[in-house]
Amino acid sequence: MESVKVESQEKMGEFSFIRRFFAPLAGKTAWNLGDDAAALPPLSSESCFVVSVDNLAEGVHFFPEDSPRRVAQKLLRRNLSDMVAMGAVPRGYFLSLAFNPENLDVEEWFEAFQQGLASDQEKYALSLLGGDTTRIKGGIFLSITIVGEVHQKGILRRNGAQIGDELWVTGTIGNSALGLLCREGKISDSDNIFAESYLLPNPPVKFLVGDIASAGIDISDGLLQDLEHIAEQSQVGISVDILDIPLLPQAQPYFETHPDIILEGGDDYQLLFTINPKNKARMMARAEAENIQVTCIGEVIQGKGLFLKNTEGKNLSGKGGWRHF
Amino acid sequence: MESVKVESQEKMGEFSFIRRFFAPLAGKTAWNLGDDAAALPPLSSESCFVVSVDNLAEGVHFFPEDSPRRVAQKLLRRNLSDMVAMGAVPRGYFLSLAFNPENLDVEEWFEAFQQGLASDQEKYALSLLGGDTTRIKGGIFLSITIVGEVHQKGILRRNGAQIGDELWVTGTIGNSALGLLCREGKISDSDNIFAESYLLPNPPVKFLVGDIASAGIDISDGLLQDLEHIAEQSQVGISVDILDIPLLPQAQPYFETHPDIILEGGDDYQLLFTINPKNKARMMARAEAENIQVTCIGEVIQGKGLFLKNTEGKNLSGKGGWRHF
Repeated sequence: MESVKVESQEKMGEFSFIRRFFAPLAGKTAWNLGDDAAALPPLSSESCFVVSVDNLAEGVHFFPEDSPRRVAQKLLRRNLSDMVAMGAVPRGYFLSLAFNPENLDVEEWFEAFQQGLASDQEKYALSLLGGDTTRIKGGIFLSITIVGEVHQKGILRRNGAQIGDELWVTGTIGNSALGLLCREGKISDSDNIFAESYLLPNPPVKFLVGDIASAGIDISDGLLQDLEHIAEQSQVGISVDILDIPLLPQAQPYFETHPDIILEGGDDYQLLFTINPKNKARMMARAEAENIQVTCIGEVIQGKGLFLKNTEGKNLSGKGGWRHF
Repeated sequence: MESVKVESQEKMGEFSFIRRFFAPLAGKTAWNLGDDAAALPPLSSESCFVVSVDNLAEGVHFFPEDSPRRVAQKLLRRNLSDMVAMGAVPRGYFLSLAFNPENLDVEEWFEAFQQGLASDQEKYALSLLGGDTTRIKGGIFLSITIVGEVHQKGILRRNGAQIGDELWVTGTIGNSALGLLCREGKISDSDNIFAESYLLPNPPVKFLVGDIASAGIDISDGLLQDLEHIAEQSQVGISVDILDIPLLPQAQPYFETHPDIILEGGDDYQLLFTINPKNKARMMARAEAENIQVTCIGEVIQGKGLFLKNTEGKNLSGKGGWRHF
């Protein structure tokens, strides 16, 4: 971890805070708090580094009463999802923290927060490489910069979808959006599966397909909005068979009454990708090896924007761009 | 720039905010807002990436009335100083922002903030590669993650100082600490030189000596504290001739009355380094080529901690570790 710069009057307090909660998470390349920055030699001469930033703020992305352990995991996993979306293996992350120690049981909150990070570091084989800590007046603000690595030929971008490619998605869609509704008391969630999806996303970190897929994105803004990004960047149309979208059985009734929640809800952190049918067998073998559910939900077509069909082939979208049902 | 994830209700506002203020700063590797992350191919197969994070918060590191242009430059330059301290060439940076649009003239503040970044991007030949933006209740919170690159043999660390090495420093010391006192009205600053040093540090970005120096650190916490880091990490003693410490003529009177302000004040963002005397000529040639002032202020000795001498050789420090005059 790089040495953390702090205001002079609070130096010792901050140093011991870092030592207490974050030094145990630091990886080897971080030189254990001993330098101005972390140094990362590339794993191969044909590697490319991939870097992404994601914030989480109390009152915006999480509730003050949320488990700090889950907050830590959500923060890290949102960033891991960006690595999947680029076809990259995560190597480590940098943590920027701001909080008001007067409004917080610092010991309790950061103890649990650290446990969440430690648990996911082990699960995903990565470590903390550096960071900075600041005392502010407002709520807790957290930002992670994640660094991953990918072979230069394995980068997955948004702009490569070709007409004739199939459109695939990992996992099931809409659980997190339904989870938010549960937390707001708007729907019930007897087995807690949606609330858990909202709190703890599970991106398919080992499912790297940049060398065989033509375009990809992780679903953070919502299935349709993220699909629009692929369509726009690739300058193609995308036709989606909406009844093929993979759902949990518990989500099915809501899809019938509130399809927009499922289709536009966001925070799924699943991978949406397009692939030439000739590469389908290789892709499916990788999914099977990692025990990841993959579903074909449409195809890349001529045109512009999204075209939504039900299984009878009826076009549910307006002229080119889809808006709302 | 990676695509920035935002809460659904504010998506369009945030996208246009990013497009308006930050897309113009985005570098090529950021793919102009079009992907989940930035991709950085190494410039050479023997390169190492160097990454550091630094926060600035309103009310902590800057005053609400400070020029947003200067805030942007200070934020970036603090990070650039970490790159100098590692011997690395900066390649780009990621910006994490949080602010309350209700308490801020967003248009005016970010227009000036962007101008500060744009001006320094040109000065230092680097660009914005990604980021994330969040609306919070508190003051403005800014964090930069900077990414630089260095040949694996040119990394400058803190732990390499050897007995017999000379101790050198760039620029002049204490100006920023005196600037803070001026801003607090405690001392006067007729030509505004200290206040300007506080607002606008000037790290010696082109003075890269990782291949010839044995250890280095940038002065952010204060000359003595940062020297202690080198001594501790390198497990050596460091003897400092305090009357050799380079000062502006305007700072000289304060050094006599308040040496602690100069020696411990921090925020100098100059490079402190140790070097084997045999490499001195090469180092001085580089300093001259970049028009950077360098001064020898001491030497690496046996022992532990700092030893402060005046020019008569009188030891001003206590037993081993220096505390206060």
